[in-house]
Amino acid sequence: MTWLRKNIETLSPYVPGFQPRDDGYIKLNTNENPYPPSPRVTDALRGIAPASLRLYPDPGSERLRDKLAAAYGFQRSNVIVGNGSDELLSMALRAFLDPGEKAVCPAPSYPLFGVLVRIQAGELEEIELDKDFKLSSKFKRAQAKIKFLASPDSPTGAVHPPEQVDEIIERTDGLVIVDEAYVDFAETDCLSLVRKYPHLLVTRTFSKSFALAGIRVGYGFASEEIISGMMKVKDSYNLNRISALAAEAALEDREYHEKIVRAVKEEREYLKNRLEEMGFHVYPSGANFLLVRPEGSRAEEIYLALLDRKILIRYFQTPLLRDCLRISVGCRREMDQLLQALKEIENSKEGRL
Amino acid sequence: MTWLRKNIETLSPYVPGFQPRDDGYIKLNTNENPYPPSPRVTDALRGIAPASLRLYPDPGSERLRDKLAAAYGFQRSNVIVGNGSDELLSMALRAFLDPGEKAVCPAPSYPLFGVLVRIQAGELEEIELDKDFKLSSKFKRAQAKIKFLASPDSPTGAVHPPEQVDEIIERTDGLVIVDEAYVDFAETDCLSLVRKYPHLLVTRTFSKSFALAGIRVGYGFASEEIISGMMKVKDSYNLNRISALAAEAALEDREYHEKIVRAVKEEREYLKNRLEEMGFHVYPSGANFLLVRPEGSRAEEIYLALLDRKILIRYFQTPLLRDCLRISVGCRREMDQLLQALKEIENSKEGRL
Repeated sequence: MTWLRKNIETLSPYVPGFQPRDDGYIKLNTNENPYPPSPRVTDALRGIAPASLRLYPDPGSERLRDKLAAAYGFQRSNVIVGNGSDELLSMALRAFLDPGEKAVCPAPSYPLFGVLVRIQAGELEEIELDKDFKLSSKFKRAQAKIKFLASPDSPTGAVHPPEQVDEIIERTDGLVIVDEAYVDFAETDCLSLVRKYPHLLVTRTFSKSFALAGIRVGYGFASEEIISGMMKVKDSYNLNRISALAAEAALEDREYHEKIVRAVKEEREYLKNRLEEMGFHVYPSGANFLLVRPEGSRAEEIYLALLDRKILIRYFQTPLLRDCLRISVGCRREMDQLLQALKEIENSKEGRL
Repeated sequence: MTWLRKNIETLSPYVPGFQPRDDGYIKLNTNENPYPPSPRVTDALRGIAPASLRLYPDPGSERLRDKLAAAYGFQRSNVIVGNGSDELLSMALRAFLDPGEKAVCPAPSYPLFGVLVRIQAGELEEIELDKDFKLSSKFKRAQAKIKFLASPDSPTGAVHPPEQVDEIIERTDGLVIVDEAYVDFAETDCLSLVRKYPHLLVTRTFSKSFALAGIRVGYGFASEEIISGMMKVKDSYNLNRISALAAEAALEDREYHEKIVRAVKEEREYLKNRLEEMGFHVYPSGANFLLVRPEGSRAEEIYLALLDRKILIRYFQTPLLRDCLRISVGCRREMDQLLQALKEIENSKEGRL
């Protein structure tokens, strides 16, 4: 006998990138920031009175939401925060998608979109990206209760131009969710569209550009109607005291944030140029990772050879991606170690032939 | 136009007790522990390398689960951890309750049970407790896909005897969820039943007896089948790095844990005796709060008079409880200030008459 719902029994859950428990790896597989978070986060953590931890956090996370609202030009009622942006996506589905209702997402894109639709017993339509990983006209036209997209997209790195996203929202009757987890590494974003459309939710995170994946804080911007709907399904105390303080401190240190974002973009350019010199096709990226296609069909072989050398990158066995590799942008030392290893792998292959 | 699901549009969300943002209150309304967490938690927080926060946490939270398994005599596969036990309850519903399926819970009990069933579009049956707040025979007999109960119960404080819970699980075909958030303040628990029944989930929390409501860590014990089903709907990184470390540290300091639990129980006894001397009816409690019934129908009046004095307790406007007050057990100073205030309120009333 099983107590599981049918849709959960048959569900293939989202599998995050491997998180090794020892420190011996060069970790370029889950798009973490190679730099530490702002020193103000350290100060904030030091400043926590342990006795305060006996008390529940503010259920409305008002101080953090006020700071986010001020930083991005919204009202508190347009802002929601969560235990990672994954929780915000999950909340949106619970608030807005009835079982059996249709949700569409591009493929490949963030695989969690589809997993969450299946958990909600929604009807999922995945629409393939065009070649060059652009949104297809079929996707643009599709109607659904919820339409997902990510920009910059993952694992492709593609930035979907705001004019295009604007047009998609204009045409879509249902709720459009734009996951901007990587947006701080891009040149454009869709925030201004939140002021234009009541049926747009933009989600972001402290995990990537703020170098705080370990604290699990995501945030979202939308109309008051969308935010208040999500608040109704939110766990009362979904953001703990410490993570909220850390996020507030990181947000306030704009200068440091800009500095590490700039550094990541510089390393991205460096990595792109070196990989192109080595004959890799590098797709345009507005994120802190590169999707690359080695010559031949050697992606899996290279992935495994790097793994042997304790360098973790991401390989996806899906049809559209099986010739590609996704590499997080690390610091210069990590990039040089990766490039050196790739050269060794290349040479050992030539020796073998 | 609304994008909300019908069941969410009409939902009255769970309303947690008031969390004041200033420190001027005596806070006896949300059953927080009056003592600070273990000094080892402080050490653990001090020991965090800020740079480690750039990395995602372990998606399986294996170290904390291993420690919990060892502490309570289970395997890791029988343990799940979450962003508060509220998240575990929500996960269980998403994994096990199809929309339209029936869930039952006692009333009054933890109001979140019903809210979560409504979010999941389940059919909720609330079955009134017997007088003296015991589980009714109707509740014991009821069949449902999910049957909830809390022991010690809230807001009543009643401990439902493990033999009775055993019998309920034996009779119930669906999943039984026993919320033991307050169990460390009681003399009995239902953990041994987890080894006996595959369809039992017991949830607990670091919020109450470990004095860590601010970090949001809950844990649950169940059969491997139940746990693995819940893991399928879990957010990948549902427990942040810092909270996991704090929980591990608190768990390891058994001596301190026992000390503050003992202190709370002593203060509970002290408060009970003083309130009885003042003519309150005090219901038996295995939790860190007391449900009390003042003479006459003066509960709301007393609640408001205490609020005027910046003493927060909990008043519920539901029919079965509107003559009662729920008071969290605080430290001696807080208990004496409460008792003094109650005497003043009593005297001013007499003066008025």
